[in-house]
Amino acid sequence: MDTRRVEAFSDGVFAIAITLLVLIFAETETDHRSLADALLHQWPAYVAYVVSFLTIGIMWINHHTVMAQIGRIDRTFLLITVVNLMFVAFAPYPTRVVAEFIRTDDRRAAALFYGISFTCTALSWAALWYYAALGNRLIAADANPRTVNGITRSFLPGTILYGGATLVAFASAIASIVLFGVIALFYALESTIFGRE
Amino acid sequence: MDTRRVEAFSDGVFAIAITLLVLIFAETETDHRSLADALLHQWPAYVAYVVSFLTIGIMWINHHTVMAQIGRIDRTFLLITVVNLMFVAFAPYPTRVVAEFIRTDDRRAAALFYGISFTCTALSWAALWYYAALGNRLIAADANPRTVNGITRSFLPGTILYGGATLVAFASAIASIVLFGVIALFYALESTIFGRE
Amino acid sequence: MDTRRVEAFSDGVFAIAITLLVLIFAETETDHRSLADALLHQWPAYVAYVVSFLTIGIMWINHHTVMAQIGRIDRTFLLITVVNLMFVAFAPYPTRVVAEFIRTDDRRAAALFYGISFTCTALSWAALWYYAALGNRLIAADANPRTVNGITRSFLPGTILYGGATLVAFASAIASIVLFGVIALFYALESTIFGRE
Amino acid sequence: MDTRRVEAFSDGVFAIAITLLVLIFAETETDHRSLADALLHQWPAYVAYVVSFLTIGIMWINHHTVMAQIGRIDRTFLLITVVNLMFVAFAPYPTRVVAEFIRTDDRRAAALFYGISFTCTALSWAALWYYAALGNRLIAADANPRTVNGITRSFLPGTILYGGATLVAFASAIASIVLFGVIALFYALESTIFGRE
Repeated sequence: MDTRRVEAFSDGVFAIAITLLVLIFAETETDHRSLADALLHQWPAYVAYVVSFLTIGIMWINHHTVMAQIGRIDRTFLLITVVNLMFVAFAPYPTRVVAEFIRTDDRRAAALFYGISFTCTALSWAALWYYAALGNRLIAADANPRTVNGITRSFLPGTILYGGATLVAFASAIASIVLFGVIALFYALESTIFGRE
Repeated sequence: MDTRRVEAFSDGVFAIAITLLVLIFAETETDHRSLADALLHQWPAYVAYVVSFLTIGIMWINHHTVMAQIGRIDRTFLLITVVNLMFVAFAPYPTRVVAEFIRTDDRRAAALFYGISFTCTALSWAALWYYAALGNRLIAADANPRTVNGITRSFLPGTILYGGATLVAFASAIASIVLFGVIALFYALESTIFGRE
Repeated sequence: MDTRRVEAFSDGVFAIAITLLVLIFAETETDHRSLADALLHQWPAYVAYVVSFLTIGIMWINHHTVMAQIGRIDRTFLLITVVNLMFVAFAPYPTRVVAEFIRTDDRRAAALFYGISFTCTALSWAALWYYAALGNRLIAADANPRTVNGITRSFLPGTILYGGATLVAFASAIASIVLFGVIALFYALESTIFGRE
Repeated sequence: MDTRRVEAFSDGVFAIAITLLVLIFAETETDHRSLADALLHQWPAYVAYVVSFLTIGIMWINHHTVMAQIGRIDRTFLLITVVNLMFVAFAPYPTRVVAEFIRTDDRRAAALFYGISFTCTALSWAALWYYAALGNRLIAADANPRTVNGITRSFLPGTILYGGATLVAFASAIASIVLFGVIALFYALESTIFGRE
C-alpha cells in the first residue's frame, strides 16, 4: 500500500464529510414566521457550517504537508488513519447539534460535544504523526528535517488550543464555537507552522 | 501542494454536491392526491434540480480551464479555494428552499436566497481568479496570455449576470430561477468566453 | 479538458449516486409489528435497491468501454455528459418512490416514474454516443472500428428495451421493475455487445 | 478496463459508504431529558458507528492487498465487484437499525440483520477472490504465490468468523456487535494473514 492511495482515500472521506455538512440544514421550519425570518433566524447554523467547513478544509490542506513527509506505511499507521477518518467523518453530527441547540438552554452541552469531537480529531492527528515521526519510523529518507521538526512542534500546541477552545464552552458556548473558527483561520494563514510549500 | 491535488479535491466536492441535489426530493407527500398528481405537482423541484445541476456542472467544466492556467499554489489560494468550495457545497440547501417555497407566498424570499447563494459562489470564483492572475502571481509560465485575459474579462460580466438574475426575483421569483438556468446554458455553449480546449 | 478528467468526474458521480441508494431505507417503521416483520415486509425496497444498484453499476462498466473509444472532447460533449450525469444522479429518487409505493394502489405510477427516469438516462447515453460517433467526430484515431460499430448497434436496442420495460408497467408494475433487473444482468454478462476487454 | 479504475471506483464507494455512516445520527431527541443526557443515552449508536467504520475501513485496507494480486479483469469479475459494493454500500442501513433497536425488545432481530448483512459482504468478498484465484484465472504473473495462498487460506475462516458472530446474536445481541468490532481490530493488526506490505 503506497502513500498515494492512502492520500486519495483520505481526500475522499474529507471531501464527502465536508460536503455532507450541508445536511445540517434539514427542514426549514417557518411556523408562524415568514421564510425570510426563518432563514435569518437560523444564523447559528450558518456559523456552525462555516466553522466546521473551514476546520475540515484546513485539516485537508495540512494533511498533504504531513503525508508528503511519509515515506512508507505499515498496518498500524493504516489503522490510526482509519480512526482519524472516523473522527473527521463524524463532524457533521456535532455541527448539527450545535446548529440546533446553540440558542436553547442546552447550548453548553452542544458546544462541549462539538469541542470534544474536534479535540478527539486533533488527538488522532497527533497520534498519526507521532507514530510516524518517532525515531523517523515512517519518515521519507528525503524529507526536510526542518519541516518534520516544524510539524512535530506544532501538534502539541494545536491539540492544547482545541482542548482550550472546548473548555471555553463552560464560560460561553458561542465564544467556544467562534474560537474554533479563529483557530482554523490561524492555521490556514500561518504558513510558518507547517512550513512553506 | 501541487495543482493536481487541489483539482482532484475540488472535483470531489463538485461531484458530491451535485449528486446530493437529489436529496431535495425528500418525502413524496400524496395527501389527498394520487402519486401521479403528486409527482407532477412538484414540478418546481425538477426545475430547481435541473438549474442547480447545470450551474454546478458548468462551474466544474470552467474550473478546469481556470486551473490549467495556474502554475503554482500558495496558502492564500488554498484558503480561497476552501471558501469557494464552501459555497459550492452549500448549493443543495437553497435549491431545496426554492423547490419547497416557489409556489407559496414566500417565493420571493426563496428566489432571493437562491440567487444570493449563487452570486456569492460567483464572487468567490472571481476572488480565486483575480488573486491568482493579479500581476501573474500564480499563472503558469507557459499559460496562453489570450486565455488568461479571456478569463479575466469574463468574470466581471459573469458576476454581474448572477447579481442581476438575483435582483429579477423582486419582479418574478420564477423568472429569476429560469434565468439562472439560461445563464448556465449560455456559459456551457459559449466557448469563446473561456477559450477553446 | 482530457478524457481522463471527464471519466474521473463521471466515476465520482456514479459512485456517489450508487451509494446514496441506501438512503431509500429511511425510517424503519415498526408500528404494530416486530422489527423482524418490518424488515421482511419492506422487501420491495430491497428489490428496488438491487435493481437500481445493478443498473447504475452496469452503466459504470459500459461507460468505460465508451470513453475508451473517445479521443478528444468538445464543449457540447461536456454538456451532454452533464445532462447524462443529471439523470444518473436522479436515480435514488425514483428508486425510493418505487420502494415506497409498489404495494399501494399507486404502484403503476411508481413503476412508470421509475421506468421513465431510467429510459431518459438511456436516451442521454445514446445522445452522448451518437454525438461522439457521428462521422467519427470525437472517436480516437486508434479506436477499434469493430468496437465502435458494436457500441453504435447496441444503443438502439438498449433504449428500446428500457422503453419497453417501462410500458410493461401498464400491465404489471412489479414485472416492469424485475425486467429492469434482468436487462441489467443481461448487459453485464453479454460481453459480445460491448466487445471484449 | 484495467485494475486501477476498478480500484478507484471501489475506493470511492468505500469512502462514501463509510462517510454516510454518520447519517445514523438523524434527529437528536431530547424529549424530557437534557441534551447531555440524550447524547449519552444514545451510546449504542456510537458503538455501532465505530464497529461499522472499523469494519469497512479494514475491508478497504485488505481490498488493496487483494487487488494487488490481480493482473487482469473480465466482465464476471466486474459483476461480482458490483455485487460486493452493493453489500458494502448497504452497511449504513443495518448500522442504523442496530443503533435504533439494540435497547428495545427487538435487539435480537436488529443484531441478526446487522450480522447477516456483513456476512453477505464477507461472502461476496470470498466469491470475488475465489473467482479470481481459481486456477490463477486472473492472478498477475508476478504475484507472490505465498501472498496469494495466504489470502486464499484467510477467506474461509473470515467468513466463518462473521457467520459465527452473527449466530452469537441469539445468545446476546450486544455481544454479537462487539464481536464484529473485535474481528475488525484483529484483521487490522494481524498482518501475517494478509501478508506484509
